[in-house]
Amino acid sequence: PRLVRAPRGTTLSCRGWEQEAAMRMLMNNLDPDVAERPDDLVVYGGTGRAARSWAAFDAIVDALKSLGDDETLVVQSGKPVAVFRTHDQAPRVILANSNLVPRFATWDEFRRLEALGLTMYGQMTAGSWIYIGSQGIVQGTYETFAAVARQHFGGSLAGRLVVTAGLGGMGGAQPLAATMNGAAILAVEVDEARADKRLATRYCDRKTHDLDEALGWLGAAQRAGEALSVALIGNAATVLPELVRRGVTPDVVTDQTSAHDMLQGYVPDGMSLADAAVLRAEDPAAYVRRSTAAAARHVEAMLEMQRRGAVAFDYGNNIRTVAFDAGVARAFDIPGFVPAYVRPLFCEGKGPFRWVALSGDARDIARTDELVLELFPHDAALKRWITLARERIQFQGLPARICWLGQGDRAKFGVALNDLVARGEIGPIVIGRDHLDTGSVASPFRETEGMKDGSDAIADWAVLNALLNTASGASWVSFHHGGGVGIGNSLHAGQVIVADGTPRMRARLERVLTNDPGIGVARHADAGYESAIETARRNGITLPMTR
Amino acid sequence: PRLVRAPRGTTLSCRGWEQEAAMRMLMNNLDPDVAERPDDLVVYGGTGRAARSWAAFDAIVDALKSLGDDETLVVQSGKPVAVFRTHDQAPRVILANSNLVPRFATWDEFRRLEALGLTMYGQMTAGSWIYIGSQGIVQGTYETFAAVARQHFGGSLAGRLVVTAGLGGMGGAQPLAATMNGAAILAVEVDEARADKRLATRYCDRKTHDLDEALGWLGAAQRAGEALSVALIGNAATVLPELVRRGVTPDVVTDQTSAHDMLQGYVPDGMSLADAAVLRAEDPAAYVRRSTAAAARHVEAMLEMQRRGAVAFDYGNNIRTVAFDAGVARAFDIPGFVPAYVRPLFCEGKGPFRWVALSGDARDIARTDELVLELFPHDAALKRWITLARERIQFQGLPARICWLGQGDRAKFGVALNDLVARGEIGPIVIGRDHLDTGSVASPFRETEGMKDGSDAIADWAVLNALLNTASGASWVSFHHGGGVGIGNSLHAGQVIVADGTPRMRARLERVLTNDPGIGVARHADAGYESAIETARRNGITLPMTR
Ligand SMILES: NC(=O)c1ccc[n+]([C@@H]2O[C@H](COP(=O)([O-])OP(=O)(O)OC[C@H]3O[C@@H](n4cnc5c(N)ncnc54)[C@H](O)[C@@H]3O)[C@@H](O)[C@H]2O)c1
Ligand SMILES: NC(=O)c1ccc[n+]([C@@H]2O[C@H](COP(=O)([O-])OP(=O)(O)OC[C@H]3O[C@@H](n4cnc5c(N)ncnc54)[C@H](O)[C@@H]3O)[C@@H](O)[C@H]2O)c1
Repeated sequence: PRLVRAPRGTTLSCRGWEQEAAMRMLMNNLDPDVAERPDDLVVYGGTGRAARSWAAFDAIVDALKSLGDDETLVVQSGKPVAVFRTHDQAPRVILANSNLVPRFATWDEFRRLEALGLTMYGQMTAGSWIYIGSQGIVQGTYETFAAVARQHFGGSLAGRLVVTAGLGGMGGAQPLAATMNGAAILAVEVDEARADKRLATRYCDRKTHDLDEALGWLGAAQRAGEALSVALIGNAATVLPELVRRGVTPDVVTDQTSAHDMLQGYVPDGMSLADAAVLRAEDPAAYVRRSTAAAARHVEAMLEMQRRGAVAFDYGNNIRTVAFDAGVARAFDIPGFVPAYVRPLFCEGKGPFRWVALSGDARDIARTDELVLELFPHDAALKRWITLARERIQFQGLPARICWLGQGDRAKFGVALNDLVARGEIGPIVIGRDHLDTGSVASPFRETEGMKDGSDAIADWAVLNALLNTASGASWVSFHHGGGVGIGNSLHAGQVIVADGTPRMRARLERVLTNDPGIGVARHADAGYESAIETARRNGITLPMTR
Repeated sequence: PRLVRAPRGTTLSCRGWEQEAAMRMLMNNLDPDVAERPDDLVVYGGTGRAARSWAAFDAIVDALKSLGDDETLVVQSGKPVAVFRTHDQAPRVILANSNLVPRFATWDEFRRLEALGLTMYGQMTAGSWIYIGSQGIVQGTYETFAAVARQHFGGSLAGRLVVTAGLGGMGGAQPLAATMNGAAILAVEVDEARADKRLATRYCDRKTHDLDEALGWLGAAQRAGEALSVALIGNAATVLPELVRRGVTPDVVTDQTSAHDMLQGYVPDGMSLADAAVLRAEDPAAYVRRSTAAAARHVEAMLEMQRRGAVAFDYGNNIRTVAFDAGVARAFDIPGFVPAYVRPLFCEGKGPFRWVALSGDARDIARTDELVLELFPHDAALKRWITLARERIQFQGLPARICWLGQGDRAKFGVALNDLVARGEIGPIVIGRDHLDTGSVASPFRETEGMKDGSDAIADWAVLNALLNTASGASWVSFHHGGGVGIGNSLHAGQVIVADGTPRMRARLERVLTNDPGIGVARHADAGYESAIETARRNGITLPMTR
């Protein structure tokens, strides 16, 4: 097994910071502190890889080391396939991962071609070299709860009770993200080991097996207006109906159990974890019958809480579909989190913006945290996030920060970062984002669910985003298929750009960080969202056929 | 009905020649001499459109007229959706047409979204504004016959007999393309009106209803080594088996009847055209049974000719699949034309290269014809094509020329064209190509059928082609879904670049015309084609993991 870590410091091993950034970020994606299974080049999200093979990894690093400032490296599903002369405003790397002709876009065909060595699964930020560990998950969840707070509770969840379940890879961020928004949160988790992990990393405050105890703690916190997270070891299909029976109606109810998989994921109630494992192995069909019935009861309870006044939303785990197919006719009364909470942010050009200190020096990020607070003093949710993130988020791999910035602010911040680098206050910074962003993704089961004009499956926008970022001068641009919701179900683009302190990159930063969210604002304006049309007008984005 | 024609002359109505070129080529695509149904904005290929609506057309023209030399217009399925500041090496227009999330990539879903006004069918060169009428078809067919001649007959079809059928929109080019290669060709066509049209435009030399007469004429031509094309009015499913019975074995046999559609296209034998129309309307199932049985006998005859020594190939009309499904087990013994004849050209970076005189002055094209002959004096097939094209091809819309040029030669020619413009010998020229090209298309039923490494369905290359052309500075770049073989079955990219005589465009021409075919050479080298690896080596293309 190879151990990969990005070099630290400000000495170049490549011919420029764009190439160096690509090399370090590729390596950082495979850092054991960042990647889930670095030996297999798997970064996160199932089998999301950073390179097709170790030989391909080595060849990419070699190519980056010799790449000129007017050349572009071409990467096809994690394999470097060519180098061409371009120019100094063009990306240094272009990447396409996992793309298939639509008729062949199934997992079976993908796996067949993968086994032939012809492709790899790039997920979103694995194959595009800008995954930075779990901070992104915490922040995305934080941002969703912040939107819930703004829409329903005047901007804060202080004094509010949130009920959810699932403390796994994604769901484990819920307690921290909720308390960062001031909430008292009950998180039901069937697997005590998972809960313990969240306590160990301080993502969750307390744990109990006793519902009464949990409710006691939480009630006290609510009355005191204090944030508190409690993991309750139990099964959501039992606990939520019990809350309903007791007349406990939370302010917010959601869920992140692994309901996307009724055999390997969701655990039926009325049995121990060990018994569940036996049943799964011995009689999978019976297991699925029982887990499905449990999930249906789980959703019924959520619906009843909603009827009684709770704000309910689905968090992308497919539990509504499972319940609906099992006869819960009103399952889709629970809205998806994207249309309800994320899309309003997308309309303002907001999305999961992130930056990484290439030097490896945590003080560089500390300085950039200050910069956020200096530049955007009036954004209360942003200020709370930055303040709490500095306390609570441990860096994984190269130090990094995430926050959601919108149209105008991204460019302003990027240019200011470059100026900090130019003045020598910090080392070079790389700026990127998730493929899940305002203008970069077509994904009818998540990011583009329920578009106002019905354009959920229209994928031109993701393509245009990749082309526009290339035309604007991002440092690397990627276009992937199948991230997030799987092969066949999504197309999406990414961009990363380097702030090295030069005037050349300053101009490119301003353009890219204007245009990249800008095409998202245009996409939502075209679909008829008023706030996107307003954002475009306020930011001077030209929309030839809107109004 | 609106009448659209591109302005002629060298007076700009836009702020630069790149924008002017995009505007004129959009208009030229809708010129009644070029477009099939200009009133509906349909250019060719079913419903391949140049713009989504007339309102969108007007908005595109307006946007192009005000577009700066450092701006980029974004077009989503024929509708202009935004303008962004980029830079003077970036494309002026980026376009994405007909793209859908793969799971939704069916004709039904496409038509539903189209009816909602959310998309349009871009075909290949319709939505990317570089269709130039039937010259492209003639030249593509010429090139295929030339490849047949080179591979099997020492470079010429003089003295050879070609048998084919179908003189429709595409197939009508066969008599001219074959005689340009020196052949004697028998083209069986069931619809006399279609044959008459080919005689009227001089694409075909003679017509008869009598097989004996046809064979007499053709035999005399063969013996004299003269080129001759004869349309025989008849049904291929009758005529070809009759040839077999008589022991007439052609040197080459192929087919371009409309076998892709067994109800609207292929005509059953043993009945008149009028009777076929009645049967089609009254009993479609019976029609399909009869047309399928006819096509099967047609393919059986082709196979028998092949067994007796004829060079047989399928010309992309799906007749092999029809026959195979009807029980002709060996139907796929007939190779597809791409793997057999076009792929070897792709390996050398060759593909359907074309250019258009923006001035509208036919003398500009005459001068560029001279330039081809000056620059490439040793390419006999090219010389024959240019010489004959000057005589036989009538311009449609703006004067244009097509020929297949390969790696190295495209860049050399583009730069030389720009120099001619710089010297004032000719007006500005726009250079483009079909999406069907060496590195720009993923289409397992045509362009990427039977790739050596099994990568037929891998679509990363088409994406990378679009990104690379954008990074290299093409004037407009397009990425489409579903052209040629229909929704679900293909993804493909296009580029067009303007030679306006400036040093800026000279540099961009050199880069784009090197990199655009270059990624095609890399794609074929990666798939293991020796001649592509050789072409890459000869042209200095860096392939990090090949050899
Ligand atoms: N919102 C998004 O954008 C988004 C992103 C990724 C994943 N998801 C979905 O969210 C879900 C959670 O993702 P994850 O990565 O945390 O999955 P995971 O498998 O790591 O964690 C799921 C957790 O749920 C627990 N669980 C299962 N059944 C339970 C039950 N009946 N009661 C209580 N706990 C139970 C499991 O023990 C496990 O700890 C998945 O379905 C995933 O597809 C959503
Ligand atoms: N090689 C390629 O790249 C390529 C490109 C486009 C189309 N095609 C395929 O080639 C075929 C021809 O295309 P087209 O645009 O000319 O189609 P078309 O419909 O315009 O013409 C087909 C012709 O075949 C004739 N025909 C039908 N049945 C016949 C029979 N039994 N005997 C004799 N003649 C018969 C029709 O009368 C018609 O004139 C189509 O199937 C098309 O899909 C191939």
